Amino acid sequence: MAEFSKGLEGVVAAETQMSFIDGAKGILEYVGIPIDDLARNSTFEETVFLLWNCRLPKKAELDAFNTDLRSRYRIPAELTSMIQSMPKTAQPMHVRRTAVSALSMYDPSPNGLDSAGKPDIPAMRSKALNVLAQIPTIIATFDRHRRGLPVVDPRANLAFAPNFLYMLNGEAPTPAMARAFDICMILHADHGLNNSTFTGRVVISTLSDMYSALTAAIGSLRGPLHGGANEEVMDMLHEIEAEAKKQGKDVMDYIEPYIMDKLAHRNEGARIMGFGHRVYKTIDPRATFLKTFSKQIAADTGNMRLYEMSSKIEAIMAREVGAKGIYPNVDFYSATTYHSIGLKLDLFTPMFAMSRTSGWAGHCIEQVTDNRLYRPAAKYVGPHGAPYVPVAQR
Amino acid sequence: MAEFSKGLEGVVAAETQMSFIDGAKGILEYVGIPIDDLARNSTFEETVFLLWNCRLPKKAELDAFNTDLRSRYRIPAELTSMIQSMPKTAQPMHVRRTAVSALSMYDPSPNGLDSAGKPDIPAMRSKALNVLAQIPTIIATFDRHRRGLPVVDPRANLAFAPNFLYMLNGEAPTPAMARAFDICMILHADHGLNNSTFTGRVVISTLSDMYSALTAAIGSLRGPLHGGANEEVMDMLHEIEAEAKKQGKDVMDYIEPYIMDKLAHRNEGARIMGFGHRVYKTIDPRATFLKTFSKQIAADTGNMRLYEMSSKIEAIMAREVGAKGIYPNVDFYSATTYHSIGLKLDLFTPMFAMSRTSGWAGHCIEQVTDNRLYRPAAKYVGPHGAPYVPVAQR
Repeated sequence: MAEFSKGLEGVVAAETQMSFIDGAKGILEYVGIPIDDLARNSTFEETVFLLWNCRLPKKAELDAFNTDLRSRYRIPAELTSMIQSMPKTAQPMHVRRTAVSALSMYDPSPNGLDSAGKPDIPAMRSKALNVLAQIPTIIATFDRHRRGLPVVDPRANLAFAPNFLYMLNGEAPTPAMARAFDICMILHADHGLNNSTFTGRVVISTLSDMYSALTAAIGSLRGPLHGGANEEVMDMLHEIEAEAKKQGKDVMDYIEPYIMDKLAHRNEGARIMGFGHRVYKTIDPRATFLKTFSKQIAADTGNMRLYEMSSKIEAIMAREVGAKGIYPNVDFYSATTYHSIGLKLDLFTPMFAMSRTSGWAGHCIEQVTDNRLYRPAAKYVGPHGAPYVPVAQR
Repeated sequence: MAEFSKGLEGVVAAETQMSFIDGAKGILEYVGIPIDDLARNSTFEETVFLLWNCRLPKKAELDAFNTDLRSRYRIPAELTSMIQSMPKTAQPMHVRRTAVSALSMYDPSPNGLDSAGKPDIPAMRSKALNVLAQIPTIIATFDRHRRGLPVVDPRANLAFAPNFLYMLNGEAPTPAMARAFDICMILHADHGLNNSTFTGRVVISTLSDMYSALTAAIGSLRGPLHGGANEEVMDMLHEIEAEAKKQGKDVMDYIEPYIMDKLAHRNEGARIMGFGHRVYKTIDPRATFLKTFSKQIAADTGNMRLYEMSSKIEAIMAREVGAKGIYPNVDFYSATTYHSIGLKLDLFTPMFAMSRTSGWAGHCIEQVTDNRLYRPAAKYVGPHGAPYVPVAQR
């Protein structure tokens, strides 16, 4: 039996054709194409097609994929009612997990197996497309419900990114906003066997259904050690602003003492959010792109101060811990980007999850195409041959 | 980097003190106590205490645990309404997954972390106890909704097993029925790193919450390669009865040709449900106990024919494939037991899940007590350095 590697670090748990990561060199490719090229040139829809088919679509294929996706934007009326009956104080990730799970109940054949009990790949793709198309509607419906605003129906003449922002705000976004959001969706779509993707593969390996696997993955992504970090980056920026104000200091002057203090207390658990990654030992290639990009969107939207704060934090961190391989990760500059787009803090993780749904679904299909039930071993470290002592004698 | 072991077979993915399995010898122990001793002498509530505390409770502790559990049977009124708004045709496992996910929204602090962002173990135990106490209420509420019957409120003067049967049927079960159901709950409570338990540990390792982890595990258990098998055993028994009738044969005479035909077509994927297990290469110790026990409950409830059919199938299988290590597993005799108790077929997997929730929660707490994020590696088998070709040139 193999050695026990905590957290399965270094253990190969699946084969994939979807994304390639070289953590030492800072490379991320989707089906061989560098992430930077995709972010500059592609759209989220095209990227999803790439991940699900392992090739770029021809023009007619992309048009058909777009039409199909847009035709599925609308959620069942019963689900709208269910979301509108949810507590307004609920956290969006709990809402999203519950609503994606509920979608299965409005699918007349939710399980995605053929009559012989084998995975029905076209059916699974269709269910994945349904969920992907309807997640923006679910998030926007809940956000408007909690703000006491009427639902805004999706518009099939809008692409994925602008349709979401339209349903959220009740007006179509500017092209620059829509493009910024679309790029964030591209950058977050897939990333090897991260915890939520692995969760999805583990669940679907029982030949359970796409709804179960995607619901499970959402539950994973909401953990602070996984998808929750981009919200914490924003919290940190706000904390610096608030502390500087309290101490009567200029915020830019306060960054250096704040970071140095955190670094000094690292042994007691103090952390600087948005830095370091289990896989990358150099700059996360998504962070490189987002840095340039977030500067532009911050300038367009009057949020340059946040960008400058981020940039200064990055410089201090490079000076202090860069030699240890601790660099900005994707969460660091996506925080300022999402903030500049006008998204509320507790929608940051749902945005990540909205995009990553495409990667999860692709991995689930890849898993069942050559399936083996995940059933690892445990190392038992408890007692043996203990007696059952009757309660009166304990 | 380690070799790729498909399905993580033989890979140690966690340490546990909860259950020990020796697949070659057919041993299952909870915290060192043989499963047979627990099934004969313990109760489900006491077994849950054992799994969560790694020791048997003293009398006063057990009384307190029972009182606490019973005080939590009732679900929020909003959740009752949500369940009553669900389609009556929904499959109970999809309902259960959705309702457990929804419970998080009625918990004022669902995430189970302390103010420093560390796991709050007492809070996690409390959430686990909530879910465990309310799952029977969720299942019974939905089952009565789909039958067009009014909700039956839980009764705090009943133990876990009889309270569930009371809410389901509107009348308290006989002591024999209650005990039969309680024993099934004990036998299914924990079983090492099975897929759903592993799913729960993977999810909670992101420091996500108990609701997310248990919701994910439900999604795993509903897969046909995991928890769905006990329903398929019953389907097989019904199929044999129906085929025998169609061919004008006595059902007991028809078993031999039916099984031999299935065995002859194994290479084309024909399977005999309820036999074989990834871990056990001899008789599953839970099956040994359930065999004796299901005979008694079948006799008590006029279902001896089903027991006799099962027994004959077991004898044929022992003669034909016993030498290959293919023996009855826990699903085989739990099917007849659940049927004798009067449970509907599509509640078999939810019953398994109801019991296993205790094991899932225990493993989640064990995981965060000495946590490391699950983040295995993937072996990339796709192309490298591919160009982004503009759509017009594809």
